Amino acid sequence: MSRAEGRRADELRPLGLEPNWLEQPHGSVLYSQGKTKVLCTASIEEGVPRWLVGKGRGWMTAEYSLLPASTGERTQREASRGKQGGRTVEIQRLIGRALRAVTDFGALGERTLWLDCDVLQADGGTRCAAICGAYVAGKRALDRFGLSRAFTDSVAAVSVGVVGGTPLLDLDYSEDSTADTDMNVVMTGDGRLIEVQATAEKDPFTRELLGELLDLAERGTRLIGAKQADAVSRDLP
Amino acid sequence: MSRAEGRRADELRPLGLEPNWLEQPHGSVLYSQGKTKVLCTASIEEGVPRWLVGKGRGWMTAEYSLLPASTGERTQREASRGKQGGRTVEIQRLIGRALRAVTDFGALGERTLWLDCDVLQADGGTRCAAICGAYVAGKRALDRFGLSRAFTDSVAAVSVGVVGGTPLLDLDYSEDSTADTDMNVVMTGDGRLIEVQATAEKDPFTRELLGELLDLAERGTRLIGAKQADAVSRDLP
Amino acid sequence: MSRAEGRRADELRPLGLEPNWLEQPHGSVLYSQGKTKVLCTASIEEGVPRWLVGKGRGWMTAEYSLLPASTGERTQREASRGKQGGRTVEIQRLIGRALRAVTDFGALGERTLWLDCDVLQADGGTRCAAICGAYVAGKRALDRFGLSRAFTDSVAAVSVGVVGGTPLLDLDYSEDSTADTDMNVVMTGDGRLIEVQATAEKDPFTRELLGELLDLAERGTRLIGAKQADAVSRDLP
Amino acid sequence: MSRAEGRRADELRPLGLEPNWLEQPHGSVLYSQGKTKVLCTASIEEGVPRWLVGKGRGWMTAEYSLLPASTGERTQREASRGKQGGRTVEIQRLIGRALRAVTDFGALGERTLWLDCDVLQADGGTRCAAICGAYVAGKRALDRFGLSRAFTDSVAAVSVGVVGGTPLLDLDYSEDSTADTDMNVVMTGDGRLIEVQATAEKDPFTRELLGELLDLAERGTRLIGAKQADAVSRDLP
Amino acid sequence: MSRAEGRRADELRPLGLEPNWLEQPHGSVLYSQGKTKVLCTASIEEGVPRWLVGKGRGWMTAEYSLLPASTGERTQREASRGKQGGRTVEIQRLIGRALRAVTDFGALGERTLWLDCDVLQADGGTRCAAICGAYVAGKRALDRFGLSRAFTDSVAAVSVGVVGGTPLLDLDYSEDSTADTDMNVVMTGDGRLIEVQATAEKDPFTRELLGELLDLAERGTRLIGAKQADAVSRDLP
Amino acid sequence: MSRAEGRRADELRPLGLEPNWLEQPHGSVLYSQGKTKVLCTASIEEGVPRWLVGKGRGWMTAEYSLLPASTGERTQREASRGKQGGRTVEIQRLIGRALRAVTDFGALGERTLWLDCDVLQADGGTRCAAICGAYVAGKRALDRFGLSRAFTDSVAAVSVGVVGGTPLLDLDYSEDSTADTDMNVVMTGDGRLIEVQATAEKDPFTRELLGELLDLAERGTRLIGAKQADAVSRDLP
Repeated sequence: MSRAEGRRADELRPLGLEPNWLEQPHGSVLYSQGKTKVLCTASIEEGVPRWLVGKGRGWMTAEYSLLPASTGERTQREASRGKQGGRTVEIQRLIGRALRAVTDFGALGERTLWLDCDVLQADGGTRCAAICGAYVAGKRALDRFGLSRAFTDSVAAVSVGVVGGTPLLDLDYSEDSTADTDMNVVMTGDGRLIEVQATAEKDPFTRELLGELLDLAERGTRLIGAKQADAVSRDLP
Repeated sequence: MSRAEGRRADELRPLGLEPNWLEQPHGSVLYSQGKTKVLCTASIEEGVPRWLVGKGRGWMTAEYSLLPASTGERTQREASRGKQGGRTVEIQRLIGRALRAVTDFGALGERTLWLDCDVLQADGGTRCAAICGAYVAGKRALDRFGLSRAFTDSVAAVSVGVVGGTPLLDLDYSEDSTADTDMNVVMTGDGRLIEVQATAEKDPFTRELLGELLDLAERGTRLIGAKQADAVSRDLP
Repeated sequence: MSRAEGRRADELRPLGLEPNWLEQPHGSVLYSQGKTKVLCTASIEEGVPRWLVGKGRGWMTAEYSLLPASTGERTQREASRGKQGGRTVEIQRLIGRALRAVTDFGALGERTLWLDCDVLQADGGTRCAAICGAYVAGKRALDRFGLSRAFTDSVAAVSVGVVGGTPLLDLDYSEDSTADTDMNVVMTGDGRLIEVQATAEKDPFTRELLGELLDLAERGTRLIGAKQADAVSRDLP
Repeated sequence: MSRAEGRRADELRPLGLEPNWLEQPHGSVLYSQGKTKVLCTASIEEGVPRWLVGKGRGWMTAEYSLLPASTGERTQREASRGKQGGRTVEIQRLIGRALRAVTDFGALGERTLWLDCDVLQADGGTRCAAICGAYVAGKRALDRFGLSRAFTDSVAAVSVGVVGGTPLLDLDYSEDSTADTDMNVVMTGDGRLIEVQATAEKDPFTRELLGELLDLAERGTRLIGAKQADAVSRDLP
Repeated sequence: MSRAEGRRADELRPLGLEPNWLEQPHGSVLYSQGKTKVLCTASIEEGVPRWLVGKGRGWMTAEYSLLPASTGERTQREASRGKQGGRTVEIQRLIGRALRAVTDFGALGERTLWLDCDVLQADGGTRCAAICGAYVAGKRALDRFGLSRAFTDSVAAVSVGVVGGTPLLDLDYSEDSTADTDMNVVMTGDGRLIEVQATAEKDPFTRELLGELLDLAERGTRLIGAKQADAVSRDLP
Repeated sequence: MSRAEGRRADELRPLGLEPNWLEQPHGSVLYSQGKTKVLCTASIEEGVPRWLVGKGRGWMTAEYSLLPASTGERTQREASRGKQGGRTVEIQRLIGRALRAVTDFGALGERTLWLDCDVLQADGGTRCAAICGAYVAGKRALDRFGLSRAFTDSVAAVSVGVVGGTPLLDLDYSEDSTADTDMNVVMTGDGRLIEVQATAEKDPFTRELLGELLDLAERGTRLIGAKQADAVSRDLP
């Protein structure tokens, strides 16, 4: 099993985090992992949905989208189809759960935190990249508004999988499309699990393999976490 | 931690499988697990979607729906809202992946297998019950058409979770809504994993806990598997 | 003209009414007429739509749906098409009018009565079966909340038609699809008419024929009414 | 019971039929009955829906719409709400059934007849006016294309009802909104019934009353039929 | 370049304005220009959208629609497609901007002015005809409610274009579909510009040509303005 | 009238064109004008819509979207609202017309050119920036496929307007929102006009002013054209 550009089985693709990539949103980061590029922004609005008013607690909404030309073959724009596809819905629910697990809604107060993750170029691992970037954008926005305590820990996510019998960290698109098993793991900065989603794409898998993949994922999220910590504190406005 | 009706931590709720509950669909089962009741049907149509024609392979589509009054408080009907909610979309993608993992599409041939899972009453665990019932309905329909080889193994699913610090098998609604961690596990009849979805509802969790929950889930799916085997062969028309 | 299972021209198919078939809704009945099976539930919510607030009067909404596999050939799910079909809309308006004709909205008070009619298996006469079942489910829910006076009479409905020149009571699907004239009649318990919908499917019809069909329908609704009365009072919780 | 402008109980409002009111559609009529004004057009297209191709038979589609300002208080435009309301759906299904009952689809051949009924001003009885006008527009279009035999008879419709205890012919809006019973009757030129829709708006009704109302309706449709016959043959292009 | 019916290059088609064509709307006009026929109505409602309440200012909404059979070949009804097409959206935004430019929203007060423009027959120039008719209907409705000052000037619009090298005033459909350049011009009664939309349909154009077309448009709007002034004051109720 | 950062009335904001900003689409450019940032991509697909097959001519589709956080206050995502707003529809029709005016569809052959313009940050002038970027992305994609002749000239667009009585080139958001008159001008590389859209936001305007604004726009598009020419030929892959 040889990987593109001589990457080792337990090696991440090159990471790039450009915080404050836009001037207007409260928080933003252009997050890239290999050719995958996701623009994540955070917007804080005063107020919460009507049914939550007066409870002293905040609300968070995450949205995810692929630009039409982000994929190798152009994908139809969801706004012109008139609805979000099943994959989009599933991914934005995952992003929301991941970030909610480290959010203290009492500390957020009666505010809404919008996290928008727009994939500008897709080469595998976009949902994990979106979670990693959403954390950075969200954290920068909260810090700017003096709401640092609203995140109780950091969050990182990475995909792992088995390709041709070998467990690999951080699958790119060509690896992902031939994987036997595919797993997305979301972890906190202190090394606990928030979400594990393992799927047998071809053959059902064993618990031993599940263990091996979790080891790889732990290693990956630790490395990403260090880059996130740097991006959170860099270039403060 | 005491459970309703004196249930033990590693005990399933009473299972009821009534195959052939309807006369018209090709396969059907009324599947109940405690108060949760799901009507699963299977329909086999000649032909496949246009882009698959001429490849000698079949197609499968799974749909899931909650009847409005199935939940304690009435839920709005998706057909009158004009779209399926995010939770529905996520669940029917899960059901589809679970059944596809044991389907031999070459053996199915150029046919479409529709699996419809309609929750008549919901008391926790509906997505897992839908998977268990869909397998039975699908298998009966395939057997009837002489397509038994299109399923390569059986599939069962069960929810497990941690409530008040105790790992529990097969959460009912009141347990599920207070769970710290919630996990759905889909397994084949030969004991391998098809899908693991673990989510930290309140606190992130450790790998040790993940292991304990998988032990419980294995036990649960084995017990369900025995009931499914009986229902698949009972009352053949 | 010989009918399935030796049925006479003025004979109903076997009726089955299982009240309290579900534990969770306020009222429910599994209503079957031959192979036609409709699950009817009633839910009472405090409150009315905004424009009715403060008038001391209640509101009622009826919804009808066919499960996809209820029909001989699978029907597309309306929630996944994104809208209700014309036939569904027409039928749920009919069910609503039928029940409103016996409802005292002042006695209901500022509450909303939801009537959900889900066809689990369709073999003709589903709209009439839905009306008959909705009355039973609604009545049981109202009785349970001490609102018995909100229904001023009972309601039953039946289809009649002309097949091969012979007027028939309670058409099944194969009869309905070859009928020259098709009529749905909704009546109160005291024998007055709420709705008459007669349609020439093939040839226009005469007033004499209209009269003969009404005679048959009166007989049918009287027989159904007796079964409803029994189901309303049976197994009170 | 005194009616507006001294009208008798069994008297129609003034009828106006202006055939060929538009130059471009294949057939058109501006149909008015009192203040109710409906623009009906007919368009004949070569070809039928895909599933009907090659059977030598035609197809017909009727559509109905209220212009927003046609009603006393402005109604929201359905195109901007994004869907047709239940009342619209019900009415256009009725118009379609009425005209199909006199259509010989073999004589029409593989063509589609579109009947569009747009209510420019609404003062009660719009669905019946639409049926009467659709017949005239359709007939003129068929005659023009040498397809006269595709309609086997003429069709007229009228509303009747009981207001303050008195049976009345051709209700206007203020009468309709206080009616106890409301009935729409569709008849062929030779006096047979195509559709009877009687609804108890307030109190259930008896068979005697049904008979009285049918007598009034027969009288009304006969009078309308004479005007239609004139409009069909007037000002042939 | 010879035009239909011997029309000169700088000549309008025959104009017809029938104010008060309907009895029920607050203001109405049947506006025709050649074969193009647009029914324009104005409705004044007390109240404004929620976000504008309490500011002492009014609101205006313009809607535009083509009846299906208004075009040579039948166009699909937008209400049944479930959404307004791009052309419709673009046109109703133009109508709204045109009328807002002469509206004093303070003088209108907290009221909403609805302008509905429904094209009954389309032969080119429908958007300009809609603007001209909407002004007349709106003005008559405002006058009737004693709100004359809410319009500060009149508005007229006309299309101009280049066909076969010749600049022409008021294109009909056959001219429009072969035009090289197409321009819509909206002007106030005092001769100033509200909107200029020039589009190169085939070849890009020069500023000299733009000037020539504006000259033609000024002439056209002046002639239309005189007819509007007459229609505004005619047959006051 | 003093402008941000000391800009003169006839001065553009700083332009940035980064061609090939993404690796996967056939052509791409990150186009920025001041704080306005638009990502434009071009995708060439073999084949055309069904009704155009066999005519030897190509097709082009342009789409435009604002990312939710691109605006100062977050805008709702159109894919989650379920439809594109009126402003979006109007803008993407403008982009399409602009590029079609310089496209030789015979030279394109039976291919579809998709132009996607996604606004990452909006500070005024986004529709013009989208046109300028779409030309560059499209041109690079065509060159790469040996289809250079499919564009017959270049296209640039710029906004001009009157703020506080002074004609200004290239309005930013704060200028645009206080402008009396606002105009978008699209020109070819050889200085001819493709589209002129002038709108009186507050007061109607004169032809003299229209002339002054066109002078400014000509100057602006010439300057942008030079930058486009450079970006089209830079860093060819």
